[in-house]
Amino acid sequence: MAEHRVVIVGGGFAGLQLAKDLRCPDTSITIIDRRNHHLFQPLLYQVATTVLATSEIAWPIRAVFRRRKDVSTLLGEVVGVDKAARIVSLKDGNTIPYDTLVLATGARHAYFGRDEWEPFAPGLKALEDATTIRRRLLLAFERAELESDPEIRRAMLTFSIIGAGPTGVELAGIIAELAHRTLVDEFRSIDTSSARILLVEAGNRVLPVFPEQLSAYAARALAAMGVEVRTGHPVTRCDEEGIALGDEFIPSRTVIWAAGVQASKAAAWVGADKDRAGKAIVGRDLTVDGHPEIFVIGDTASVKTEDGAAVPGVAPAAKQQGEYVAKVINARVRRREPPAPFKYKHLGNLATIGPNSAVIDFGRVQLKGTLAWWIWGLAHIYFLIGTRSRMAVALSWLWAFVSGHHSARLITQKETLKDEV
Amino acid sequence: MAEHRVVIVGGGFAGLQLAKDLRCPDTSITIIDRRNHHLFQPLLYQVATTVLATSEIAWPIRAVFRRRKDVSTLLGEVVGVDKAARIVSLKDGNTIPYDTLVLATGARHAYFGRDEWEPFAPGLKALEDATTIRRRLLLAFERAELESDPEIRRAMLTFSIIGAGPTGVELAGIIAELAHRTLVDEFRSIDTSSARILLVEAGNRVLPVFPEQLSAYAARALAAMGVEVRTGHPVTRCDEEGIALGDEFIPSRTVIWAAGVQASKAAAWVGADKDRAGKAIVGRDLTVDGHPEIFVIGDTASVKTEDGAAVPGVAPAAKQQGEYVAKVINARVRRREPPAPFKYKHLGNLATIGPNSAVIDFGRVQLKGTLAWWIWGLAHIYFLIGTRSRMAVALSWLWAFVSGHHSARLITQKETLKDEV
Repeated sequence: MAEHRVVIVGGGFAGLQLAKDLRCPDTSITIIDRRNHHLFQPLLYQVATTVLATSEIAWPIRAVFRRRKDVSTLLGEVVGVDKAARIVSLKDGNTIPYDTLVLATGARHAYFGRDEWEPFAPGLKALEDATTIRRRLLLAFERAELESDPEIRRAMLTFSIIGAGPTGVELAGIIAELAHRTLVDEFRSIDTSSARILLVEAGNRVLPVFPEQLSAYAARALAAMGVEVRTGHPVTRCDEEGIALGDEFIPSRTVIWAAGVQASKAAAWVGADKDRAGKAIVGRDLTVDGHPEIFVIGDTASVKTEDGAAVPGVAPAAKQQGEYVAKVINARVRRREPPAPFKYKHLGNLATIGPNSAVIDFGRVQLKGTLAWWIWGLAHIYFLIGTRSRMAVALSWLWAFVSGHHSARLITQKETLKDEV
Repeated sequence: MAEHRVVIVGGGFAGLQLAKDLRCPDTSITIIDRRNHHLFQPLLYQVATTVLATSEIAWPIRAVFRRRKDVSTLLGEVVGVDKAARIVSLKDGNTIPYDTLVLATGARHAYFGRDEWEPFAPGLKALEDATTIRRRLLLAFERAELESDPEIRRAMLTFSIIGAGPTGVELAGIIAELAHRTLVDEFRSIDTSSARILLVEAGNRVLPVFPEQLSAYAARALAAMGVEVRTGHPVTRCDEEGIALGDEFIPSRTVIWAAGVQASKAAAWVGADKDRAGKAIVGRDLTVDGHPEIFVIGDTASVKTEDGAAVPGVAPAAKQQGEYVAKVINARVRRREPPAPFKYKHLGNLATIGPNSAVIDFGRVQLKGTLAWWIWGLAHIYFLIGTRSRMAVALSWLWAFVSGHHSARLITQKETLKDEV
């Protein structure tokens, strides 16, 4: 019997979970990713804000599977799929044949048709996005220190975060902490505690997926930390000078985009129907219509729950889909009954705001404040990969909590000097 | 009385030590650096080879001096000095006046007139150099895994380090460990333990500044780790295909330069006489001839010891010079007798080769093997800045030692995808 070749494109939460769970006789698994590492995205904003080091939340995919001789890892960028020949094409010219193909290529941030805003308002998806934002944040203070014009200085010390979902809230909270606490003794010409941190949301409240009372708590907690929350204000302009909310222009030299995502191109590779966010519409078994051998999972798939609601683009949903597809493939290879259609089990929503302040919505149970903050922290440490990362992140957090100082305040990347200073 | 303004250009070992030691009434200190961080260069090769995270060996300069209200830190690139007006010019147009100027701008790697080799053989001085080398090392294995031509694959798995001083020896040892131990279970098409690691030295032995018996020990230890040592072979060609030693061409897609340094442009800024490496020649009080208000220290200064020998470009020498200049400035501000001319106290030479293997030359006492390795490790942890970094580095080393796995195996930087894969 020929080996069954499973090709997984994307080593995020969905793809990784699938490869972990899929252990079948006579089956080989190939994971293809554009990057050599799996990234723990829920903590990426902490790299962007100098709390965590890049290597604390990223692991080489091939290291995760070093003991699994049935799993191969390839670093490569997929550019297309030949469904008839059952072949994936890589940018470098290599082609990888498959019997079962799983596309788990995730999403990027989306600018709702205003792609020209991207250079001024970087989003946060990859490790390099985080170091770019970190560089801009830190450079803003450095430049303000050298600036004599008070108006320009004010614009340099105004930070705008667009989008008040969990990522936006978390970024705003930690930038406020950085400006108002961590950096406060270190500059001589500027007062970093005077920095303005704006959290802008087009909708009418922060954390819109949470119950209203938790949104209200988060808004109060943000205000107490010195974050200006501006809800009900869609951004109408965004450039190197700042942002406009309706008719009001706010000079702001550092803008971060946390307002929306768009799926990868996976749907186009396989000619699947797409929803408005570009996600491939898949059936209840997570396969593409007419192609039972092609699965699409995670943030790049549009999946409906039993009641017709969309499955959210969160890590637990991606992992559950990976788990499910492992069962389907396993049943097929072993010629058993296929599992029941995919069901999404919602575990709850978590967001942290600042020291001792977080919100958790478990549905019937809702938590806020210190207890929520501890649960949030322990849950995130638990879900990291391996003892080493858990120790490193715990140490970084402990240190930040006790000393108020962040361990990864580095301005790096070559363009720092060439283009920007 | 007007304040005495001391401007220090460069926050390396020399500049940092000077600012730490200089505490004078009515004196202000301004540190200008192109980067926001002080870098612990002796361990930079461990970032390049995935053992340490970037943030473990770099600290924001302004954080180091946050409690010193007399010390300001500026992020800026110096482009010139006006000795008559006593003003330092920055690239962004700002000018900084000084009463005393200290240039401590270090050195870059030098290609002995073969600057065209730089793109193919990056050197190791800044944090970005380390992440560039790390990216190339890891990409070499990734590409070899996808390569079907055995000859090209061989070239991809041949790593050449040029220069067998401490940095070259340390790089070769750790790359051998990476290929022959850390990565060995993780690839499916290639055998990483077959990787060739060449350490090339134009002189007739490795670690030329060490006594011959320690060089011989190091050469044996390297050979035992699988490093091919090629002494007495100057490189005659270096390009994307590989390197040539005399008439022998060795296909090698990854080459690292550890063969020499060249001073910064500081000598030119102040019109000082230069030695062959571009270092500013200074007097016994470390000032520039005719300008008692301008000091040049550290790797960018050419300083002679009492017996006429050159002070080596090592961290302890830089620190001693910083310490000395603090004394000179202190005496001047307080109108006291100037200290005796600068004397260099040589503390010894250390180099590590691999696990349980290092050499130390204290002059009369020479050590090698496990004891030397422990002393080397403890000394380096001791010299890091702050408890946080010491804990992080100790944890990273402990982890690597016990598990054989490195914590920072990341391929980052944008060009990874655009230009190279």
